[in-house]
Amino acid sequence: MTVVSSAGTVRPAQQLLRDAAELTRPALRAAVEGLPVGIRHPVGLHFGWWDQKGSPLDGGRAGKAVRPALVFSACEAVGGTPEAGVAAAVAVELVHNASLLHDDIIDGDRLRRGRPAVWAALGVPAAILAGDALFFLAVQTLAEAPGPLGAAGPGMLTRAVQELIDGEYTDTLLEDREAASVSVAEVTAMARGKTGELIAASCALGAVAGGADGQRVRCLRAFGEHVGAAFQLIDDVLGLWGDPVRTGKPAGADLAARKKSLPIAAALASGSAAGRELRRLYAGGGPLAPAEAVRAAALVEEAGGRSWAVHAAERHTRQALEELAAARPRRTAAAELRALADLVTSRDH
Amino acid sequence: MTVVSSAGTVRPAQQLLRDAAELTRPALRAAVEGLPVGIRHPVGLHFGWWDQKGSPLDGGRAGKAVRPALVFSACEAVGGTPEAGVAAAVAVELVHNASLLHDDIIDGDRLRRGRPAVWAALGVPAAILAGDALFFLAVQTLAEAPGPLGAAGPGMLTRAVQELIDGEYTDTLLEDREAASVSVAEVTAMARGKTGELIAASCALGAVAGGADGQRVRCLRAFGEHVGAAFQLIDDVLGLWGDPVRTGKPAGADLAARKKSLPIAAALASGSAAGRELRRLYAGGGPLAPAEAVRAAALVEEAGGRSWAVHAAERHTRQALEELAAARPRRTAAAELRALADLVTSRDH
Repeated sequence: MTVVSSAGTVRPAQQLLRDAAELTRPALRAAVEGLPVGIRHPVGLHFGWWDQKGSPLDGGRAGKAVRPALVFSACEAVGGTPEAGVAAAVAVELVHNASLLHDDIIDGDRLRRGRPAVWAALGVPAAILAGDALFFLAVQTLAEAPGPLGAAGPGMLTRAVQELIDGEYTDTLLEDREAASVSVAEVTAMARGKTGELIAASCALGAVAGGADGQRVRCLRAFGEHVGAAFQLIDDVLGLWGDPVRTGKPAGADLAARKKSLPIAAALASGSAAGRELRRLYAGGGPLAPAEAVRAAALVEEAGGRSWAVHAAERHTRQALEELAAARPRRTAAAELRALADLVTSRDH
Repeated sequence: MTVVSSAGTVRPAQQLLRDAAELTRPALRAAVEGLPVGIRHPVGLHFGWWDQKGSPLDGGRAGKAVRPALVFSACEAVGGTPEAGVAAAVAVELVHNASLLHDDIIDGDRLRRGRPAVWAALGVPAAILAGDALFFLAVQTLAEAPGPLGAAGPGMLTRAVQELIDGEYTDTLLEDREAASVSVAEVTAMARGKTGELIAASCALGAVAGGADGQRVRCLRAFGEHVGAAFQLIDDVLGLWGDPVRTGKPAGADLAARKKSLPIAAALASGSAAGRELRRLYAGGGPLAPAEAVRAAALVEEAGGRSWAVHAAERHTRQALEELAAARPRRTAAAELRALADLVTSRDH
C-alpha cells in the first residue's frame, strides 16, 4: 500500500479516489471480518469479495470512494494525517453501502456495479439484514474511534443517516405522486437528504477527525452540502443520458419507473410544450415502455431539464468553493478538495 | 403518569409491564417526534399512534414492554432510579420494533399485533426505511444519554444488534435447509442471537444505567441471556399452540413456512416415529397446507418437542435465577426480576 502524502504535490481527482479506496479497504475489510459469521456472507457478496458460494473474487466491486476521498481531504485540510481519517472513511463507506443494499430492494434495481444486487442474488431478507449489519457497523466504527471522532462522530453520523432515510422515503412517495403536483423545491429537499447529508457528513467527520474546531467543521460541512447537491444533479443527468457500462445501471431506469429526479422535475415544471407532453406521458400507470422512456428523455432535454441541472450543479460547485475558502484549509488539501468537487460536476455528462 | 416506586411492595409481573410501558411511552414518543417528518408517518403507523391517513388513534399497539420492564428492574436492582432507566428502555424498545418492522417483511407476516404490518399497509420500502430510522434512533438515544450509559451504551447495543441480525439471517437460511440436516444446537444458537441478545442487552443496559460495576453488569447480562433463551422457547411453543387472538399472529404460520423453531427442531431430531413422519411432511417444497400444518403440530407434540421446550425453558429460568442472585440485587427489584422471568416461561402454554 502506498500512502501518497498530500504535502507538496496536488493529486488529480482520480488519483485521490484510488488512494482513498486503498487507504480505506483494509480497515473496511477488517471491520466486516468482525461481523458474526453468517451475515458476513451477503455483505462480502455485496462488496464483490466473494461469489455466491463464498469463493474469493479478485478486486471486489468497491464504488468510486468519493465519500472516503472527501473524508481524507477534509481531514488533511485542517492538518490531520491520512491515518486519522481512516475510521471516518470506513464509517461513511459502510453507511453508503448499507443504503445501497436497501435502496436496490426499494427501487427494484437488479444490478449493482454491473453484477446482481444482493437482493436479486440471495433474496430480499439477506439484503435487508446485510444493510442493517452495515449500518450498525458504521456506528460501531465511529464509537470505537479515539478522541473527538469517537465522542462526536456517532451523533453526527446518526443525524445524517436519519435525513438520508427520510430522503429515500420521500423519494418513494414522490414516485406515486401526480407529476403535475411535484415541485422542484420538494425534489431538491429530497435529494439534499438522500445524497447531500452523507456527503456533508463525510466532510464534517473528516474535519473532526483532523482536529478542526467547530467553525471549520461547519464550513467544511457546508462545502460538502453543496458538493452533494451538485453530485446528485449530475448523478440524475447520468441516470438519463449516462453510459450504462460506466454507471452500472440500465439507462432510462429512472424514467421507466416514473421517477421525479431533478432534471425531470425541472422539465415537468418548465411550462414548455415538451414539459406538458412529458406530464401526459407520466400521467399513466405502470412502468414506461422502452420507447416511451427514450421519448421522455428527449422531452426532458427539450424542456431544458438537462441544461438546468448542469447549471445548477455548477452553481453549487461555486458555493462549495466559497465555503471551502472560509474553512482556511491547507493549500494542497484545498486544491484536492477543489479537484474532487470538480470531478463530481463533470462526470461524462 | 404514576411512577410506582419499587421500594417496599413487590409488583406483580403484569403490573411491571404496564408501569414500564407507561414510563417508556412519553420518551419513546418524544424520540420519534424528533425524526424527520416524512419517515415519522410509517413509524407512527407501526406503533399504532395514527392510521394510514395520519389520523390519531387511541391507545397504540405497543408490545408487552418485556424489554423495558427488564431494563427498569435491572436498573433498580443495582440501586438506580426508574428515571435513570428511561433512555435504555426507549433504546431497546426502538431496536425491538425496528427488528419487527424488518422481520415482518422477511417472514411475509401481514399482521402485527392484530393490525396490518407496515409493509402490508404501505409497502416494503416504507417498512425497510422505518426500521432503519428506528435502529438509528435507538443508537442516538443511548449516545445522548449522560454518564456511563452514554459512554458504554452504544457499543453494547450495537454488538447485541449485530448478533440479532445474524440470528435473523441464520433463521432465513434454516428455512431452506433440509429438515434432517438441522440440529437443535444450530437452532439454539440462532435463537440466542435472534432473541437472547437483546433481552440480555436490556438487563445489561439497565444495570449500566443504574450505575453497576462490571461484575454486576455481567451477572445481570447472564440473567438476561437465560431469560431470553426461556422466552424464545415459550414463544416458539405459543407459535405452534398459542391463541392467535392473544399472539396477534395466525396459528401454524411457523409450520406452514416450514420454520425450524426450537420445539420443531427437537421433534425433527427426536428419532421417534412422529419425528420421522414430521421430516417427511417437511421434505416437500412450498408452504404446508392448513391440514398438514395441523398434523405437523400434533407430530411435534407427539415427538416430545413441546415438553422438551417447556422443560428447557424451566431449566433456563433456574439458571437465570442463579445469575440474578450472583448480582447481589436489591431485594424488591430482585423479586420483580424473578416475577418477569417467571412470566415469560408461563405465558398461556
